[in-house]
Amino acid sequence: MIRIVRADKYDARRSVEAGTEEQRQAVQSILAEVRKKGDEAVRAYTERFDKVRLEQFRVSESELREAEELVCAEVKAALEEAAENIRDYHQRQVRQSWFAMRDSGTLLGQIVRPLQRVGLYVPGGTAAYPSSVLMNAVPAKIAGVPEVVITTPPGADGKANPAILVAARIAGVNEIYKVGGAQAIAALTYGTEQIKPADKIVGPGNIYVALAKREVFGLVSIDMVAGPSEIVVLADDTANPRYVAADLLSQAEHDPMSAAVLVTPSPSLAEATARELERQLEDLPRRSIAEAALRDFGAILLVQDLDEGFAVVNRLAPEHLELMVENPFDQLGRVENAGAIFLGPYSSEPVGDYFAGTNHVIPTNGTARFSSPLSVDDFIKKSSVVSYSRQDLQANGRKIVALAWQEGLHAHGRAIQERLYDFAKEDGEREQS
Amino acid sequence: MIRIVRADKYDARRSVEAGTEEQRQAVQSILAEVRKKGDEAVRAYTERFDKVRLEQFRVSESELREAEELVCAEVKAALEEAAENIRDYHQRQVRQSWFAMRDSGTLLGQIVRPLQRVGLYVPGGTAAYPSSVLMNAVPAKIAGVPEVVITTPPGADGKANPAILVAARIAGVNEIYKVGGAQAIAALTYGTEQIKPADKIVGPGNIYVALAKREVFGLVSIDMVAGPSEIVVLADDTANPRYVAADLLSQAEHDPMSAAVLVTPSPSLAEATARELERQLEDLPRRSIAEAALRDFGAILLVQDLDEGFAVVNRLAPEHLELMVENPFDQLGRVENAGAIFLGPYSSEPVGDYFAGTNHVIPTNGTARFSSPLSVDDFIKKSSVVSYSRQDLQANGRKIVALAWQEGLHAHGRAIQERLYDFAKEDGEREQS
Repeated sequence: MIRIVRADKYDARRSVEAGTEEQRQAVQSILAEVRKKGDEAVRAYTERFDKVRLEQFRVSESELREAEELVCAEVKAALEEAAENIRDYHQRQVRQSWFAMRDSGTLLGQIVRPLQRVGLYVPGGTAAYPSSVLMNAVPAKIAGVPEVVITTPPGADGKANPAILVAARIAGVNEIYKVGGAQAIAALTYGTEQIKPADKIVGPGNIYVALAKREVFGLVSIDMVAGPSEIVVLADDTANPRYVAADLLSQAEHDPMSAAVLVTPSPSLAEATARELERQLEDLPRRSIAEAALRDFGAILLVQDLDEGFAVVNRLAPEHLELMVENPFDQLGRVENAGAIFLGPYSSEPVGDYFAGTNHVIPTNGTARFSSPLSVDDFIKKSSVVSYSRQDLQANGRKIVALAWQEGLHAHGRAIQERLYDFAKEDGEREQS
Repeated sequence: MIRIVRADKYDARRSVEAGTEEQRQAVQSILAEVRKKGDEAVRAYTERFDKVRLEQFRVSESELREAEELVCAEVKAALEEAAENIRDYHQRQVRQSWFAMRDSGTLLGQIVRPLQRVGLYVPGGTAAYPSSVLMNAVPAKIAGVPEVVITTPPGADGKANPAILVAARIAGVNEIYKVGGAQAIAALTYGTEQIKPADKIVGPGNIYVALAKREVFGLVSIDMVAGPSEIVVLADDTANPRYVAADLLSQAEHDPMSAAVLVTPSPSLAEATARELERQLEDLPRRSIAEAALRDFGAILLVQDLDEGFAVVNRLAPEHLELMVENPFDQLGRVENAGAIFLGPYSSEPVGDYFAGTNHVIPTNGTARFSSPLSVDDFIKKSSVVSYSRQDLQANGRKIVALAWQEGLHAHGRAIQERLYDFAKEDGEREQS
């Protein structure tokens, strides 16, 4: 069922879902309506798409308490511990403001500040993942964002998914609104009576959410538009085919467009993994999804050696890369492009999805070439600081004027000359006295 | 000519240039043509838009040597010194990869790597600014990007602007191509016979360039789309109105849509600055541009006190903020939103544009709320690393399985269970022996 092919026959790049013209127009009209009519429009769209009429969108204290009863203790404890691990990892990404002083009195610096308000979109239905709440909200709180708010579509009973609410409490989320789809993105961008606008919107969503985020990009900051999940396993003869197959399936089950790829110089591992995939697929609950993904986007790629293997990996720039090779740390420096790298037989990719502490929001579809996993950096802004001294301006003023003139920007030059003129006058007066 | 109004009457936000439908279609067709036909299409568009036919797009060694003769020594020396200052400042932004080890044997980390290839668009004509070449290319080289390439439209003589070429040499740019407009963005995105595709495209450009960048966003990384320049000066009675006016004009001369705003609790400073603006405008070469900017987007905003002044500043979130107040460092912590902050009477904004070392590519139009000046961070990518130990997987495996089950992702759970099964078996065998 999965192909075994030579590596040069394969490209994992999938065409990015751009939406139909009809979908784009629907999104634009939702954005315009919410911008104009605020909560009234949000309420109407919620009634239309989520089949429920809500007066208040914000999740109440009593709904939050109820949710705590509905989630089992084992899951809650695991979420708490996962959150602690995520905090520990992301705490190490926190950056300080810095200043650099010169003897001449000039001081230059960079100030790091958290964003003020971040909106996190959480899908409803079967894609309501509490782990994603942790992965998006914890780094924002670690960055120091005072207002982290969630929007998530209500169920037909008008309630939010209880596991989402519990994860939100654990992550320290400040407000939760039961609004979904493009109308949620509109509310977070323009603000309504009940929902204040945010500086940044993060989180996955369906095509309408993705199109809406693309549309408001620039008015607010948005995170990357996530594509279907991917895993590439680079393995040699030392790898256990049961583990390789299980890890490939863990990504294949996400979406029929997920890409699960084994790259190996070992024909015997290739054969054994193919057999294991068949065996493990048999009683998988999401078998049809995983099977379609393996058939359409999966592959076992045979390479000459690990050199070619790394070349293939770097060309694919996968979201997740597992290195199941002998002494994986010796090979780590050869990875140019990969969002998250898992080393050795015990670093099964779901360890990172749920628990280790690294982020599971990772660039897909080859964009690890130029993007990075979600991090504390995504929730801060920097300002540069210049305190220029009289001494430095006097010493360098004319150079600045020369550069401004060269570019034909004479008012730039004059702003400097106004000061140089005063310096000359002051120095003259000092000499005379 | 400039308004003096109460602060609450003013909003600096300008509508973002979205382009006409016709412009968007033109850009889409250029992108599609270059994608399909490569250099042949680039050559045709260059002939049509730049009125010159080029066989080779790359600037030759002899053209580079010629450029060195055409730029005066004073400007060259000033560019060299500016580049040194930019290097010194940006060197402080460089981040290291890090690892964190646990006693249990688990190792988590974050790897920082430079992007492989960055394209820098440099406009032609009067907007060909060598200072911008330094501001974009130096941070990329400091980040360690091995291939920094420039595209810039040729003049009617088929040559590139010599000052751009000199700045490119000083900044360490690796390749320069004489291609402009949307066809340059297309070449950098898809690649052609002569121009290899880039991972990221930065730099300002006209509406066609901006639309093309927006269009290819996701296939490659792009920097923010820059709007017209802005300056806000927050000043009290201690400020020199000549300096305030000169600094306002230095931004007003950029573009008729530039915003130059004084915020002050001092009516006398307001009046004096208004008079100074009139006086200094009189013989300014770019007078008509500056006058239009001051009339349409400039303002002197009177506030009750500095408290209200900072509230206004933080609402406007200006690209450039000058604090010409007594003891400006005592006030620095009150700035929430500003791209670059200039303190005291000698930190005239052009000092930062050209020379101090901070970056002059700064978020405009209120986006300093969530964006940052261009920095080394814009030219790196991060990968997370997980090396999970047997001990930790045995201790935490069941928690991970519980979380996977809660989300209905059973193949995720099984990837862990495959290992747990082996652990149990190995431990059993050990006990028996």
